[in-house]
Amino acid sequence: MLDELKVKRRHFLVGAAGAAGAAALGDAGVRAARAQEASGLPDYVSWKEPGAFIQHSPQTLETMRGEIGLSPLTPNDLVFVRNNLPSLTEEQVGDPEAWEVNVEGVAQPRPITLAELRTLGPETVACVLQCSGNGRGFFEHETSGSQWLTGAAANVSWTGVPVRTVVEAMGGVDGDKSFMTGTGGEPIPEGLDPLTVIVERSVPLEAQEVALLAWEMNGEPIPLAHGGPVRLVLPGYYGVNNVKHLKRLSFDETQSQADIQRSGYRVRPVGESGAPDQPSMYQMNVKSWVTHPLREAGTGRTQIWGVALGGTEDLDRVEVSTDGGETWEEARFVGPDLGRFAWRPFVLAADLAPGTHRIASRATTASGAAQPRDFEPNHRGYGHNGWDAHAVDVTVQ
Amino acid sequence: MLDELKVKRRHFLVGAAGAAGAAALGDAGVRAARAQEASGLPDYVSWKEPGAFIQHSPQTLETMRGEIGLSPLTPNDLVFVRNNLPSLTEEQVGDPEAWEVNVEGVAQPRPITLAELRTLGPETVACVLQCSGNGRGFFEHETSGSQWLTGAAANVSWTGVPVRTVVEAMGGVDGDKSFMTGTGGEPIPEGLDPLTVIVERSVPLEAQEVALLAWEMNGEPIPLAHGGPVRLVLPGYYGVNNVKHLKRLSFDETQSQADIQRSGYRVRPVGESGAPDQPSMYQMNVKSWVTHPLREAGTGRTQIWGVALGGTEDLDRVEVSTDGGETWEEARFVGPDLGRFAWRPFVLAADLAPGTHRIASRATTASGAAQPRDFEPNHRGYGHNGWDAHAVDVTVQ
Repeated sequence: MLDELKVKRRHFLVGAAGAAGAAALGDAGVRAARAQEASGLPDYVSWKEPGAFIQHSPQTLETMRGEIGLSPLTPNDLVFVRNNLPSLTEEQVGDPEAWEVNVEGVAQPRPITLAELRTLGPETVACVLQCSGNGRGFFEHETSGSQWLTGAAANVSWTGVPVRTVVEAMGGVDGDKSFMTGTGGEPIPEGLDPLTVIVERSVPLEAQEVALLAWEMNGEPIPLAHGGPVRLVLPGYYGVNNVKHLKRLSFDETQSQADIQRSGYRVRPVGESGAPDQPSMYQMNVKSWVTHPLREAGTGRTQIWGVALGGTEDLDRVEVSTDGGETWEEARFVGPDLGRFAWRPFVLAADLAPGTHRIASRATTASGAAQPRDFEPNHRGYGHNGWDAHAVDVTVQ
Repeated sequence: MLDELKVKRRHFLVGAAGAAGAAALGDAGVRAARAQEASGLPDYVSWKEPGAFIQHSPQTLETMRGEIGLSPLTPNDLVFVRNNLPSLTEEQVGDPEAWEVNVEGVAQPRPITLAELRTLGPETVACVLQCSGNGRGFFEHETSGSQWLTGAAANVSWTGVPVRTVVEAMGGVDGDKSFMTGTGGEPIPEGLDPLTVIVERSVPLEAQEVALLAWEMNGEPIPLAHGGPVRLVLPGYYGVNNVKHLKRLSFDETQSQADIQRSGYRVRPVGESGAPDQPSMYQMNVKSWVTHPLREAGTGRTQIWGVALGGTEDLDRVEVSTDGGETWEEARFVGPDLGRFAWRPFVLAADLAPGTHRIASRATTASGAAQPRDFEPNHRGYGHNGWDAHAVDVTVQ
């Protein structure tokens, strides 16, 4: 059962016996061993699980669908990677405690260091980190960008200080502002117009109510590949808004003029170019997908499991179909509920007869928002949550 | 601020610049770099965070107190290591899916593989994993065994199948049984009486109500160092009862005759030898400790944080004292509540004047069980939860 096998180099395949051990473990083992022999991961993420990713590019690593189990959080070494600019190096960061965020658009604007952020009241929030393009590979029209399937998503615990606490410490927002803008600290390559490459995102002002300036990710300092030492975390918002290596947090009357805000991450009909008057990729929609089984199952009782998220809302239920959506049965949630911004693993037991079964899942939020069967195409292939495209065909021998 | 610095080789100290980068980060950095250059960890746990452990022996690695932050779970690479026998190698395990647990003392006893365990209804439980001897180093009398301070404890999410589900699938417990016994799969060294070394623990039958046969730890297959591929997990019970590499699960009228059960892990007065009529280290008591700050703090506002556990009960509150227990203030819990078997991070803001402050924490459960100031000595130094010994002296310049 390909998707059930989890071959971890660090835990099982230590040393020369690796490949042999892997072969004994079947396809997944062989695949993992191959990935390891090729030391498949770029240096800056070499600490991640070698066999667990689909590498679209050195900046875009997708977590394999079957790697997600029934735990409440996704361990850092399984979290997908997607960077618009190369991550900072530790030489570029220097002493993380001295890292400064320039806060602007408040009554008393000033830089604040990570060391000082630690002296303000901390909070911990568990939330889904998901790329706007997660599911792009399921669209039928031609799309540019990484062809993510389900693996540009993770459930992460972030610890930091609420933005509203920082703002209060600086006398509050200065006057009438409509947006909160985060700017990343990545150096701008020589000779390029900064606006064409800088990672700078503006979100509606109310986002400050849930936002954190975070320094801890799943119990460790935020790895540089994930935006350490300080990252802007916006629970319920797509990944791009969670600005990495945060150097500037500003409250403004207008949105950033950077391309990534002005024309990027805009939802529009296929064939149209991006423009500021189109909806931006802000809050996530309700979504779920099965992570086990994915291809094969034994005869008799099978446990079908996966994960579901409500976007910004609590989930009401997840239903699972084993006949491609003809009939549905309610699944049960497994493990602790980490709150409305987190995903919840679910499970349903099924007795599958020999043959091929189309397994789908469909989540519904407390307010009744549900995944559609199909999701309308959009030019860049953002936000796909259609349950039919996310279904898997599982064969029982 | 020594305890605040988190120098992660994999995230910050990649390559030759490591030591230099570390030096720039102060004592903690230097310590971490040294640990890394000495590649401080034994091979079987080389995937763990090099700078994060106190190594008492190759089989006993303690998580440094300041490594525990405000996240709900402890990442695997920070979880302490304590093995009574060397962990199995992947060659000894072979195909994890084919790993068998022999279930005895049920109506239809038989071996069951991990692959089959996956077909039964899974559950996920978050619970504290804590060595019976955690805190041993705080006793004033002479004790044998690792001198653990606070770091033989972690908060872990386990996924597996409830023991009661397995028992039901095998026709229920056969007749009148008083104990559930787990046996580890470690090979017995040549020429030794198995009873003197085998890891075999019996717990009261009612423990089956909360027990899991687990295969997933914090979202990954259970690492061999932590008892994979299948471990018996007993939420609320001390670590030793959570038998690693589980090969046998038996329901019995009497307890195991293995030394680890008969005379080991028995609570008795200092100077007495262990015997079956003494209390065994089963369920954990209420406990808490501060993890930040530990030695120094800046002037002005300081956030004091740590973790608290109720053993088998929900927590009612945690109080923090900055004057060695003269006065107490209630702390607030941070982040999601993972249930009665898990620990909860807590935080309290304090304005500390220049000088040295004795910071202590004291947890109380829903039923009113509270940490004592002092904990009565016992021969092996088990179960210390006295708040005074766990206090830290923090200097403000």
